[in-house]
Amino acid sequence: MAKNYDIALLYDFYGDLLTEKRRAVFEDYYDNDLSLSEIAANEGVSRQGIHDTLKKGEEQLRGLEAKLGLAARFRQISEKAEQIIALSKTIADRGDPAIAAAALQIKQTAEELKSLG
Amino acid sequence: MAKNYDIALLYDFYGDLLTEKRRAVFEDYYDNDLSLSEIAANEGVSRQGIHDTLKKGEEQLRGLEAKLGLAARFRQISEKAEQIIALSKTIADRGDPAIAAAALQIKQTAEELKSLG
Repeated sequence: MAKNYDIALLYDFYGDLLTEKRRAVFEDYYDNDLSLSEIAANEGVSRQGIHDTLKKGEEQLRGLEAKLGLAARFRQISEKAEQIIALSKTIADRGDPAIAAAALQIKQTAEELKSLG
Repeated sequence: MAKNYDIALLYDFYGDLLTEKRRAVFEDYYDNDLSLSEIAANEGVSRQGIHDTLKKGEEQLRGLEAKLGLAARFRQISEKAEQIIALSKTIADRGDPAIAAAALQIKQTAEELKSLG
């Protein structure tokens, strides 16, 4: 089973809706980068048990995204923020000082916005 | 019970996680603007029953927002998009044609972004 970074992204959004047990396994696997066998040994359960917990959690996360679509919406927001950052750089490089200052403010705001996306 | 538009906002985000029964009551109450008594008559249940369904749904929506905080994050995104729109208008009004064109592109992108927030 390869680590799936789409799932890691969905976990960032919806992870707090998983049970505590599932969250612990997800965190060991994705954040602490432990192997299935290592998590199984730590928890005193079988490797298959950990595998099943991850699979069930993945299904839950995908189900939440299928219903709410918020991760996809945030991805679109990030892309648009990137476009604004690029455009504001163009203006900052060309404009007079007052315009350059406004363009830099746009760039900064878009960067803050991107960090929310 | 006054209609609570914070709840209507949370319903927009998380409504698809409510049971079908709760969703039907929320939609009649918030989207179709029916009264508790009207919904109760339509569903053949008591007004108190509809009141309880709404209260339980509200608790569920608030619980989801307390855990995920996505509605608050989207609100911040919208505010930042508004700032970018205002700044880009300033630039568009002052710059040479090439700069004005870039500023209008920024404005348009920020408006699209705002519609996602």
